[in-house]
Amino acid sequence: MPKASPKAEDSREKLILVSSNPNKGIEAERILGVPILRVSIELPEIQARTVEDITRYKLEVAKTKGYGRLLVEDVSLGFDELGNFPGPYIKWLLEGAGGKGLGAIAYALLNRKARAQCCLAYWDGREARIFLGETEGEVLVDPRGERHFGWDAWFQPKGAQKTYAEMADAEKDAVSHRGKAYRALGEYLRGEGQK
Amino acid sequence: MPKASPKAEDSREKLILVSSNPNKGIEAERILGVPILRVSIELPEIQARTVEDITRYKLEVAKTKGYGRLLVEDVSLGFDELGNFPGPYIKWLLEGAGGKGLGAIAYALLNRKARAQCCLAYWDGREARIFLGETEGEVLVDPRGERHFGWDAWFQPKGAQKTYAEMADAEKDAVSHRGKAYRALGEYLRGEGQK
Repeated sequence: MPKASPKAEDSREKLILVSSNPNKGIEAERILGVPILRVSIELPEIQARTVEDITRYKLEVAKTKGYGRLLVEDVSLGFDELGNFPGPYIKWLLEGAGGKGLGAIAYALLNRKARAQCCLAYWDGREARIFLGETEGEVLVDPRGERHFGWDAWFQPKGAQKTYAEMADAEKDAVSHRGKAYRALGEYLRGEGQK
Repeated sequence: MPKASPKAEDSREKLILVSSNPNKGIEAERILGVPILRVSIELPEIQARTVEDITRYKLEVAKTKGYGRLLVEDVSLGFDELGNFPGPYIKWLLEGAGGKGLGAIAYALLNRKARAQCCLAYWDGREARIFLGETEGEVLVDPRGERHFGWDAWFQPKGAQKTYAEMADAEKDAVSHRGKAYRALGEYLRGEGQK
């Protein structure tokens, strides 16, 4: 039996973001502008060449948890000169050595160009959509700004004079890899809502 | 119905090593001194903190492929100063930037101490055994020796004057992380054979 305006009703339902990182939930909600319920489950992650492959696999696991509309994401930060290493393994560098380890690697490189990527996989209960946000920039040897959020104090987007960590929220969201991915998702969701 | 001397017969059966790397098969057979049949299947690998966790998961997947006695292995090379990074992700650094990338990271570090680990998981058809071989050493900025086998030309074991790549096979096997792991397995298998 059809309900009245099921599309609109769906879009008012909270999205589930499966992530063990509270900061990611806060940032996602801020950029997307819709309520997000963060569910802290550790999803097994595979090793793969691209952040997209890792995210797609994460989604497959998350889908088995019984939620309706859900989001998973994965982040990558890699140096051009290292063929995009650490890439999706940046989290293990942070865990092992903190942002300082990232700065140490940058110190060794003649070319400190890096690209940050956020891959979002959105499942609407029927099908999956992938949104990839990418921001080019440079990894600094010496961090600037607060060091709370991963490698934000070490990454300065191309054309900017500030690191992510020195930027106000709105300023960061406008240029960040995560901002780009979540805005692309937001556009898609609004398009869906108007159908 | 009991067969005559089933243990001895089992130990004559070829071991299956699941690995896509031909060099690993050759080295394994040389160190273990028993015939090994390498089967080139790409097993999905998870991301985890330790090479042992990754190897155990690999074994779980390999067990579903229908072989009897099998071996899987994973290798880790990490810098002490980076909290053991890249660790099990060393393969992605090699893929992205080659051994040169490893040398570049070493260049940045005051302390180039590193540890190489080989984790072997052996499945005899009933239960799993784990064998871990570890070798401490130093990662060189400038490689020495042939560069064919991964990072061998960049790694010099503690107390040695040569890199893995400069050593003769027997010399390398005596000190290498893989030598230690396979010898431990070999001792276990001989013990089993005598039961």
